[in-house]
Amino acid sequence: MSIYKRIQEEAYEANMQLPKLGLVLFTFGNVSAVDREREVFAIKPSGVAYDDLTPEKMVIVDFDANVIQGELRPSSDTKTHAVLYKHMPSIGGIVHTHSTYATAWAQSQRDIPIYGTTHADYNTVNIPCAPPMSDEMIAGNYEYQTGFQILNCLQEKGMDYREVEMILVGNHAPFTWGKSADKAVHNSAVLECVAKMALLTEQINPQAPRLQDSLIRKHFERKHGPDSYYGQ
Amino acid sequence: MSIYKRIQEEAYEANMQLPKLGLVLFTFGNVSAVDREREVFAIKPSGVAYDDLTPEKMVIVDFDANVIQGELRPSSDTKTHAVLYKHMPSIGGIVHTHSTYATAWAQSQRDIPIYGTTHADYNTVNIPCAPPMSDEMIAGNYEYQTGFQILNCLQEKGMDYREVEMILVGNHAPFTWGKSADKAVHNSAVLECVAKMALLTEQINPQAPRLQDSLIRKHFERKHGPDSYYGQ
Amino acid sequence: MSIYKRIQEEAYEANMQLPKLGLVLFTFGNVSAVDREREVFAIKPSGVAYDDLTPEKMVIVDFDANVIQGELRPSSDTKTHAVLYKHMPSIGGIVHTHSTYATAWAQSQRDIPIYGTTHADYNTVNIPCAPPMSDEMIAGNYEYQTGFQILNCLQEKGMDYREVEMILVGNHAPFTWGKSADKAVHNSAVLECVAKMALLTEQINPQAPRLQDSLIRKHFERKHGPDSYYGQ
Amino acid sequence: MSIYKRIQEEAYEANMQLPKLGLVLFTFGNVSAVDREREVFAIKPSGVAYDDLTPEKMVIVDFDANVIQGELRPSSDTKTHAVLYKHMPSIGGIVHTHSTYATAWAQSQRDIPIYGTTHADYNTVNIPCAPPMSDEMIAGNYEYQTGFQILNCLQEKGMDYREVEMILVGNHAPFTWGKSADKAVHNSAVLECVAKMALLTEQINPQAPRLQDSLIRKHFERKHGPDSYYGQ
Repeated sequence: MSIYKRIQEEAYEANMQLPKLGLVLFTFGNVSAVDREREVFAIKPSGVAYDDLTPEKMVIVDFDANVIQGELRPSSDTKTHAVLYKHMPSIGGIVHTHSTYATAWAQSQRDIPIYGTTHADYNTVNIPCAPPMSDEMIAGNYEYQTGFQILNCLQEKGMDYREVEMILVGNHAPFTWGKSADKAVHNSAVLECVAKMALLTEQINPQAPRLQDSLIRKHFERKHGPDSYYGQ
Repeated sequence: MSIYKRIQEEAYEANMQLPKLGLVLFTFGNVSAVDREREVFAIKPSGVAYDDLTPEKMVIVDFDANVIQGELRPSSDTKTHAVLYKHMPSIGGIVHTHSTYATAWAQSQRDIPIYGTTHADYNTVNIPCAPPMSDEMIAGNYEYQTGFQILNCLQEKGMDYREVEMILVGNHAPFTWGKSADKAVHNSAVLECVAKMALLTEQINPQAPRLQDSLIRKHFERKHGPDSYYGQ
Repeated sequence: MSIYKRIQEEAYEANMQLPKLGLVLFTFGNVSAVDREREVFAIKPSGVAYDDLTPEKMVIVDFDANVIQGELRPSSDTKTHAVLYKHMPSIGGIVHTHSTYATAWAQSQRDIPIYGTTHADYNTVNIPCAPPMSDEMIAGNYEYQTGFQILNCLQEKGMDYREVEMILVGNHAPFTWGKSADKAVHNSAVLECVAKMALLTEQINPQAPRLQDSLIRKHFERKHGPDSYYGQ
Repeated sequence: MSIYKRIQEEAYEANMQLPKLGLVLFTFGNVSAVDREREVFAIKPSGVAYDDLTPEKMVIVDFDANVIQGELRPSSDTKTHAVLYKHMPSIGGIVHTHSTYATAWAQSQRDIPIYGTTHADYNTVNIPCAPPMSDEMIAGNYEYQTGFQILNCLQEKGMDYREVEMILVGNHAPFTWGKSADKAVHNSAVLECVAKMALLTEQINPQAPRLQDSLIRKHFERKHGPDSYYGQ
């Protein structure tokens, strides 16, 4: 039995959630799950239909994006995952999708404004949209640089990846992460929901104001931090 | 057998309708059912997935939000339910969701205008949007104050909770109620439908007029009141 | 065995299509099927959930809206159906829904412009929206007058009910008809599709032009008339 | 056993994907699969419901649109397929649908701008919208001329059908093709997805810029060409 069985199963289960949650068309998405002790992660093989996936097909990759185990080629976005795992030491899983509304915001190159408590249950800030990458970054090691584009955007905006678990990459699409692959998928679904509500809000009232600070703080702290009282 | 079995089953069945009707993502909603004789209600436990619910897991709470029976923590919105049950003596059930279109209207801080007979079958007025709460109310007993924000909004607008069974809480999301938990869920689905139609109406014709009074009255009275002739 | 069995089964099967096609929430719709020889029609009982319907529950009504057979109260819209059957002698079925996009156009009080061949496959004209009814018509025999509002609108626009099988009633919702109840349901689904496409078309290009006459005629005649070559 | 069994099965399987992918209402679409050796293709019969299809019902037609085998009348769009097979010698399948968002763009007579990497994964250019056809072309051999309208549009824009596998016909709806019928269906689903995202992008940011050239090239070459590294 593979020593990577746990993360292969975690990555497999999380990948299979994407079509069920309506977050992917065909193979437009991928999830990985990390083994921090061994410094490797399991990731979806590239271009394989979800119906054809099995836990064993998840490819094992190290934090420099070298394939450690697996017959199949890993996701074309593997280097982005590797960079994020290396620089976000407390996360357990990463998701990339082209979900419809979040991708439309990414294409629009706008942060998603915080308009309500659904958003504040997960973030105290606008969901950031990293600027499009330079021609040099794209022409070079593109997927590797995508990881740094994400890290740089968070740093420039003074955001901590342990609090902000989702981002849009301008012109491209969203990435999310979390303490597990399952939580990262959860965040992808929440992001898509918040992205849709934000567009509708602007359509109903183009002057809709940003959520007041007291309510942002209240809702975020209901779910997170030392005094949280949501859940069991 | 629990003396609360009836309301636990009613609350369970009503909660399970929310995902089927497309009104919730993950655990973003909760339903309660009241026992007026015992002055308690059964409510969804906080943060528990719908697939994991059973009637026995519904938490029994009194009108001051004290847990009377149950191992699990009740919904984080329990105090809002308690306030409404105390001040709306004829209602049997309450629903809170973050359904997409109704929440977008709440985030927009606009009442939903009455544009057609679908709306008038349920309300003779615009669906009210309570103003966002003050920083003091939020910092204090937030969920308790949310209940009073709803009651105050109805009172200021001269609305009777027995006629207007749905409201938006500004920046947050909708609450609905009714003679039973099942009817409250029904109202949540109708609200979401009306909220979507109202946005589309404004997109098709930004000058769409309010429904004429005679038609409002006609449709409401077809379904409600002494001369109603809808249903069996 | 009831002599009305054929139309009861036809009406039942057609009613059951409405939720499958996504055209109704709860009981917001009704279908009837006519027996021209006996001058009666079978119609959905009022306010009964689709899951609880059986062919036997379809109520038999004559063209003056008198119940001929059935324990249940017929649809509250029965008088509208009766008027249409009396004045449209070649139709076999009628559908009323509050489907989302068609209802939004009705609430907007706009005809649906003919923007493409999907529309032209069914109509050579804009889909008409009857003006809202007068206070007198509403206060009087409302559902009966709704039938005449439809007939008057067609007449004023010079439209023949055998060519134009769908209409919006301003502020209310769509009605469709056809040679059978099944065809009337088909028309309701097409209307909803065309209504959605027309709104999207205006959003993509506010100056989108009306379809050219030659293409309207070509597509309509592919499907209808002596030289049609669509279908078997 | 029919010598056409392979293409009949390919066309059948591909046609059955259309309702599963949400690309068709009723019979508003058709797929064909070609046998290059025999210079014939198998195509959906006209107006037959997807539930009633079988591989044997696929009609065999030659490149001049003559029926070679089959009891049923072929799709009314058969001549368009024939023209495309004759002039696009390397394609294996063709799809025509009236999918909602792609059709709305066609009705709007606008090319779909390239706003993001989802689009660039499939095309390096805006998805072209062929201009509406002249009255003469429509009055003449309409479906035959539709094929030439597609070919002429590609030629005028300097596009190669081996790179651009999708097009909108102005006022009408999309056509897609590919190396197999399955790939052509895949392209239809991608087109619908890209069409929806493009509209949403413009709604979120009316000044959204075209994707930068370096990113277009990068994403297209990840999936296509000699240095592609997507998939297995």
